[in-house]
Amino acid sequence: MTRVAVVHGPNLNLLGTREPARYGHTTLPEIDARLTALAAARGVAVEAFQSNSEGAIIDAIQAASTRVAGYVINPGGYTHTSVAIRDALLASGRPFVEVHLTNVYAREPFRHVSLLADVAVGRVMGFGALSYDLGLLGLLERLGVGASSTDPS
Amino acid sequence: MTRVAVVHGPNLNLLGTREPARYGHTTLPEIDARLTALAAARGVAVEAFQSNSEGAIIDAIQAASTRVAGYVINPGGYTHTSVAIRDALLASGRPFVEVHLTNVYAREPFRHVSLLADVAVGRVMGFGALSYDLGLLGLLERLGVGASSTDPS
Amino acid sequence: MTRVAVVHGPNLNLLGTREPARYGHTTLPEIDARLTALAAARGVAVEAFQSNSEGAIIDAIQAASTRVAGYVINPGGYTHTSVAIRDALLASGRPFVEVHLTNVYAREPFRHVSLLADVAVGRVMGFGALSYDLGLLGLLERLGVGASSTDPS
Amino acid sequence: MTRVAVVHGPNLNLLGTREPARYGHTTLPEIDARLTALAAARGVAVEAFQSNSEGAIIDAIQAASTRVAGYVINPGGYTHTSVAIRDALLASGRPFVEVHLTNVYAREPFRHVSLLADVAVGRVMGFGALSYDLGLLGLLERLGVGASSTDPS
Amino acid sequence: MTRVAVVHGPNLNLLGTREPARYGHTTLPEIDARLTALAAARGVAVEAFQSNSEGAIIDAIQAASTRVAGYVINPGGYTHTSVAIRDALLASGRPFVEVHLTNVYAREPFRHVSLLADVAVGRVMGFGALSYDLGLLGLLERLGVGASSTDPS
Amino acid sequence: MTRVAVVHGPNLNLLGTREPARYGHTTLPEIDARLTALAAARGVAVEAFQSNSEGAIIDAIQAASTRVAGYVINPGGYTHTSVAIRDALLASGRPFVEVHLTNVYAREPFRHVSLLADVAVGRVMGFGALSYDLGLLGLLERLGVGASSTDPS
Amino acid sequence: MTRVAVVHGPNLNLLGTREPARYGHTTLPEIDARLTALAAARGVAVEAFQSNSEGAIIDAIQAASTRVAGYVINPGGYTHTSVAIRDALLASGRPFVEVHLTNVYAREPFRHVSLLADVAVGRVMGFGALSYDLGLLGLLERLGVGASSTDPS
Amino acid sequence: MTRVAVVHGPNLNLLGTREPARYGHTTLPEIDARLTALAAARGVAVEAFQSNSEGAIIDAIQAASTRVAGYVINPGGYTHTSVAIRDALLASGRPFVEVHLTNVYAREPFRHVSLLADVAVGRVMGFGALSYDLGLLGLLERLGVGASSTDPS
Amino acid sequence: MTRVAVVHGPNLNLLGTREPARYGHTTLPEIDARLTALAAARGVAVEAFQSNSEGAIIDAIQAASTRVAGYVINPGGYTHTSVAIRDALLASGRPFVEVHLTNVYAREPFRHVSLLADVAVGRVMGFGALSYDLGLLGLLERLGVGASSTDPS
Amino acid sequence: MTRVAVVHGPNLNLLGTREPARYGHTTLPEIDARLTALAAARGVAVEAFQSNSEGAIIDAIQAASTRVAGYVINPGGYTHTSVAIRDALLASGRPFVEVHLTNVYAREPFRHVSLLADVAVGRVMGFGALSYDLGLLGLLERLGVGASSTDPS
Amino acid sequence: MTRVAVVHGPNLNLLGTREPARYGHTTLPEIDARLTALAAARGVAVEAFQSNSEGAIIDAIQAASTRVAGYVINPGGYTHTSVAIRDALLASGRPFVEVHLTNVYAREPFRHVSLLADVAVGRVMGFGALSYDLGLLGLLERLGVGASSTDPS
Amino acid sequence: MTRVAVVHGPNLNLLGTREPARYGHTTLPEIDARLTALAAARGVAVEAFQSNSEGAIIDAIQAASTRVAGYVINPGGYTHTSVAIRDALLASGRPFVEVHLTNVYAREPFRHVSLLADVAVGRVMGFGALSYDLGLLGLLERLGVGASSTDPS
Repeated sequence: MTRVAVVHGPNLNLLGTREPARYGHTTLPEIDARLTALAAARGVAVEAFQSNSEGAIIDAIQAASTRVAGYVINPGGYTHTSVAIRDALLASGRPFVEVHLTNVYAREPFRHVSLLADVAVGRVMGFGALSYDLGLLGLLERLGVGASSTDPS
Repeated sequence: MTRVAVVHGPNLNLLGTREPARYGHTTLPEIDARLTALAAARGVAVEAFQSNSEGAIIDAIQAASTRVAGYVINPGGYTHTSVAIRDALLASGRPFVEVHLTNVYAREPFRHVSLLADVAVGRVMGFGALSYDLGLLGLLERLGVGASSTDPS
Repeated sequence: MTRVAVVHGPNLNLLGTREPARYGHTTLPEIDARLTALAAARGVAVEAFQSNSEGAIIDAIQAASTRVAGYVINPGGYTHTSVAIRDALLASGRPFVEVHLTNVYAREPFRHVSLLADVAVGRVMGFGALSYDLGLLGLLERLGVGASSTDPS
Repeated sequence: MTRVAVVHGPNLNLLGTREPARYGHTTLPEIDARLTALAAARGVAVEAFQSNSEGAIIDAIQAASTRVAGYVINPGGYTHTSVAIRDALLASGRPFVEVHLTNVYAREPFRHVSLLADVAVGRVMGFGALSYDLGLLGLLERLGVGASSTDPS
Repeated sequence: MTRVAVVHGPNLNLLGTREPARYGHTTLPEIDARLTALAAARGVAVEAFQSNSEGAIIDAIQAASTRVAGYVINPGGYTHTSVAIRDALLASGRPFVEVHLTNVYAREPFRHVSLLADVAVGRVMGFGALSYDLGLLGLLERLGVGASSTDPS
Repeated sequence: MTRVAVVHGPNLNLLGTREPARYGHTTLPEIDARLTALAAARGVAVEAFQSNSEGAIIDAIQAASTRVAGYVINPGGYTHTSVAIRDALLASGRPFVEVHLTNVYAREPFRHVSLLADVAVGRVMGFGALSYDLGLLGLLERLGVGASSTDPS
Repeated sequence: MTRVAVVHGPNLNLLGTREPARYGHTTLPEIDARLTALAAARGVAVEAFQSNSEGAIIDAIQAASTRVAGYVINPGGYTHTSVAIRDALLASGRPFVEVHLTNVYAREPFRHVSLLADVAVGRVMGFGALSYDLGLLGLLERLGVGASSTDPS
Repeated sequence: MTRVAVVHGPNLNLLGTREPARYGHTTLPEIDARLTALAAARGVAVEAFQSNSEGAIIDAIQAASTRVAGYVINPGGYTHTSVAIRDALLASGRPFVEVHLTNVYAREPFRHVSLLADVAVGRVMGFGALSYDLGLLGLLERLGVGASSTDPS
Repeated sequence: MTRVAVVHGPNLNLLGTREPARYGHTTLPEIDARLTALAAARGVAVEAFQSNSEGAIIDAIQAASTRVAGYVINPGGYTHTSVAIRDALLASGRPFVEVHLTNVYAREPFRHVSLLADVAVGRVMGFGALSYDLGLLGLLERLGVGASSTDPS
Repeated sequence: MTRVAVVHGPNLNLLGTREPARYGHTTLPEIDARLTALAAARGVAVEAFQSNSEGAIIDAIQAASTRVAGYVINPGGYTHTSVAIRDALLASGRPFVEVHLTNVYAREPFRHVSLLADVAVGRVMGFGALSYDLGLLGLLERLGVGASSTDPS
Repeated sequence: MTRVAVVHGPNLNLLGTREPARYGHTTLPEIDARLTALAAARGVAVEAFQSNSEGAIIDAIQAASTRVAGYVINPGGYTHTSVAIRDALLASGRPFVEVHLTNVYAREPFRHVSLLADVAVGRVMGFGALSYDLGLLGLLERLGVGASSTDPS
Repeated sequence: MTRVAVVHGPNLNLLGTREPARYGHTTLPEIDARLTALAAARGVAVEAFQSNSEGAIIDAIQAASTRVAGYVINPGGYTHTSVAIRDALLASGRPFVEVHLTNVYAREPFRHVSLLADVAVGRVMGFGALSYDLGLLGLLERLGVGASSTDPS
């Protein structure tokens, strides 16, 4: 069974409580549940991980690399500052999709820089929790899992 | 009935024939048909437009503004150079989603700049033709049309 | 009879309806009428042109060049991106004045760059529709038409 | 009776004698007289001030702030270097218009930077002494004084 | 019979009349005639196109792509601002040569940037109308048409 | 008899053997012979010089200046770093054309800078050894030597 | 009872021993004791935390957020590189003060950049261990705790 | 008796009346009185000076230099533009502390630059009038006056 | 007995398996064994440490500082982003050598920046696992351990 | 009798006492006396002026302009920040020489920028008080006063 | 027998006498002797060359290219300014190692730029004369000469 | 007897003939004669050297270093590009003065950069041949040779 990892970066454990006007009311467990269901409908398993620690995220990416076919990652604040997470993803040899809850280009200039973007399969941002769903669908297509459209109907 | 416009910028009329290794084999009519079906399944109508002319694209955005609830736009090469298309979208008073077939951050530096990004609802890129589907789903959620997840199941 | 051209760039056809809080309620025909009257009082004829197309604006500047003594131009979004309009104005051999409804320096940084400014006679911005009137008066003085003050009284 | 201040920055006391090919033959008293007449015709009083000293200009802006409804300022060389004059104008709580005799964008690059521009109502430049007239008209409209057009006819 | 397209950008329709001190007295039809003769002597047909519209130029490049073996293009003001023309040329899959009447490096800094240069076969500039001849000869050699030297003697 | 100098910068003595995939198989003597023939057909003499030393190139430019009517120069790596060669060419009071075998804009960014470009008559690049021929033809036209077209036929 | 958190970033555990000529001889426990006394005199409790790990600092900020009214933070080397700590502080919804032992502007240029500064209440730097005291006093005033002056006398 | 100078830059004479939402309601005489009391409690005399003139501030710094042991300076708008005030402070041979009412990093980018910061003892900003108190306490500790903590208790 | 620490940054635990075409087939334990032997032959002990966590690396550098005479560090991705590791090395008061498996200047521009380089004794890069050996030899010479040449013969 | 003005900027009144290790022990009156003697020996009168105020310096330049044939100016800290002094010198229509006691290129980067340099006749720096003598000699030669060499012998 | 060239750039002939505090007391002949011995122990011959002339260095690199398997080069001041030496090394088709006596990143910013670094095999710097030894060992490994470790023991 | 070297860089051998409107009519031998006389009057010998070759200039600086007490150097075009000449001057351990015939700040931006300026004693520019005289006088004072004023009278 194909398996994908969903990786949540720093402060995403606060989802649903932190600045809900900006980040929405959906919690991280709710997002993970939704992604699990979305993937399951396509015969794919999901494993999710969150940490505030750059090192722990790298550990998790390394550990998952032999199990999973790809990653959906919301690197949070590490998007803009972590060469080491970039290297971990490259070392995995797996494709990954970069997602963000908010549109980072509508925010501070330092958020416009991503150290992951140029080596990602693709990027999805600005749709709140739905960004994860869309990013997962994009990854699945890249993996050749599921229909080529988002709608089976 | 809610209506959304899909706007394709310069050279996208060549889709399916132009550099297929980079842009895929799906043609523009095929994309439009798929988007129409995807939207219809959610009770939304789609109108699509393509032009190589910046002025014609602005004309089309203006003309659609009284009919549509939002835009999905792949501005092609005008992404990086058109303040005037940005102004037309802002003048419409409608939300829009920016999509790209390729991951622009994996390409030339001048493609990293978008004159639309900071005023878009969100951005989707890197998934080939599927970028449009995902962008449309993102727009529909923003418009409150369809389920909050991408999957009805 | 001396003649001047007034050129309106992209999205200015929407004046009076587009973001009135920013751009005011005066429509383009009203502006053109006012400019015509202002010029007529000084024995000068006005011809006005608007297009959303960079190419059409260049065509119009070229076509007018043998008829008019100068231009008042609000290049809209093309202010910041069009070398070709700059070249058309230079090719005309006529002086021109650059006007803007809003104060571009109070807006996004990319609006601070003008590809026309250094070859214009002068610039007027920030006074809404009145910017056109003031720009026309400035052009007329440069052309030696009308009194050296703005007030005959 | 509404009152506006006209503030002339460094070296403008030399007008009419300094580099007349660039700055024209009109002297500062002549400009002030013309502005006084132009304003008087609209029921507005003008007070004018010139100094070569940044500190004295700040003193004058502060002193005028309780008397005047707005400022027309040609900050001369301080345009590009004075945060303190900007702060004085902001502290006055009054709108101001920035004017220049010459088109600063046709001159040295350091003249392209204005520390006042983004907080001004508007800017007028390039029309010699007439820049003041046009700037005053722009300020008066902002203050709701006089007709909405520059011509009573 | 091998065929090449010659594409002239905005304002080049004015050649021979526009700023002759800078651009010379040769008109565009004269240039096209000369290029046609030069190519014919090598058994190659020429088709020429001029427009002031970026969109129309893209349309023309697309339309010619199935007929021609390569392009000589003087993109005029669009040299510095058009990603979309670059994309059209890349989409054609044909080699192209970029030519300019003047030496752009002796002019304003914004003319030093070319969005085409890095994907062109080569560049020729500074020789007035002769730049086209030299560019065409360069393209023909690249296409393997004609002698490897410019002179058969 | 009119005379022109052809100056070859560092490493060009290796032509034909150095990285032939990039620089071609033509040797420097072959190029010089071809240029000599091309010029001779127009009644012009050619003298050629190559050195790896910046100082020797300056010496040669100075020495030739009283004999020649202009220069064709491929400054090689000194294009990007030599103010002194620029000064020698300016001091000669003669026009010169800058040529390159490759399209420098398709290479490393430091090759995009030329310390000669803005004072050259023109530039030709990207056509391998043919760049010299085209550059010589351009120089000859500037010198008023030979027909105004590249083809006598 | 009001409570504030004092957060010490990487290497601050070495205080008193590390480069005492630069950082002084006061140890971290001594600083914490002093801050505790200073706050207690104003009826405020202090909790202090130090870690070399960015993730652990984020964890601590999150954990404290429901207990404390604000933060005094010396982010050490993370000042210049951590978007994630910025996000954690913003997510807490609490005001914070940024302090530094040394004057960072007298040191390497990369220390001049702070990713926290623009969202801090204020900054204190350059006074060694006293910077903490002053920063705490500043925070307390912002919280409305204690007199509006630093001296009860 | 040790003596310190407090120097207030341009527009600070308006304190308490200028933009109170930003700068607070405390007036400059109130601040000076508070600082005098704070210093007196530590056996230190304070002399205060305010001017809108850069030159007068330099005069005052020079004049005080033989009397005072150090300076607390809020240079206002001259913070960002005055090399001459920097030089006057350096020439005094006395330590100084730079203070600001507001957090300059939360404001316009040009306020992020300080021409004094790297030669100051330290900086305090963002605490309104209290910034002066904290800055004075920091200076006193540097001068070895008063206890090493801010609290005698 | 003199002792040196070898510190391996993030993802270096993957050596021998991660992208072997780029990083080689030698594993980290093999490198550590080789360094231990190399040092032992010179009477020096080696202790090695690897972590993916910036904080853990800082902890390790601090802990080793009382035991070791210097460090050989390959900071991996933290080379480009960690001020805190720089500070830990400086706080140790020990010399250190920076090594890299690959030549970072042949890779992405963000890898050209090192936050450690200017305070390192020296740098070695581009020789795969041998970079460590060479770096260790360099450190040993700096420490005055072993012959001044790399070869005893 | 030819007359030249010597203008000393801010803090130069302190010469001989301020940082003598950097600026020397010669006082300003001594410098002025020396310059007066040096000029007198060539039949030229000197008038000297010093102020800490930018405005007063501008006043002095304006006042002297009808009396003097040129200026020697050490603008001190205003070198780097005053467009207004530049404008005053240009308005005088007289040549001027810029001098500095120290070599500004051996100091802070902001001292490398001069707003006067490009319009000065020449610059002399780094020779302490002697810089003035050399600058005066340079000005006198430009004015055609005195021998063409610095030595009559 | 394998042969490598050691190339010393400008001023390296002074080694042992020039600024010994920075560059050490070892002379160039001593270095060359040591390298010769080090290589000989591995069955490799060394030829060394020094010149102050960029052109002579290029000549030497070209001349050696048919004899040697690689280069160790300390380009001295030409590191930062010579595209031509880069081109000569590339033209040789041989690998090379860049070495420096000092750590260039601890020196002036212009020394941080190397025009050779990205095409070198590797770089060694900061170890004085030992940098050459280490660089040679690195080159030898790349050439497959000698053991894979630096120590045969 | 004290001895100084005068070093003339590339193209200065052309003085008196090259662009005399810019560089004057004095020849290099005339300058050298004048400097010799000026020095002799102060008991100092002069040796002069000119070359177009960077390497030869370095050779000459090295060779002179044991004979001379300092250098006056006009590095011509190498001012802006030669780290190696900087290094030769530093290696000499002698003070040097940098002179230029023209005011480089009134010319192209690349001439504003000097790789020597920050390590020179001082700089003189803009006075034509007299710049050498003034530079020599400045050097002599630094060497303690001759009176402290430029005039013995």
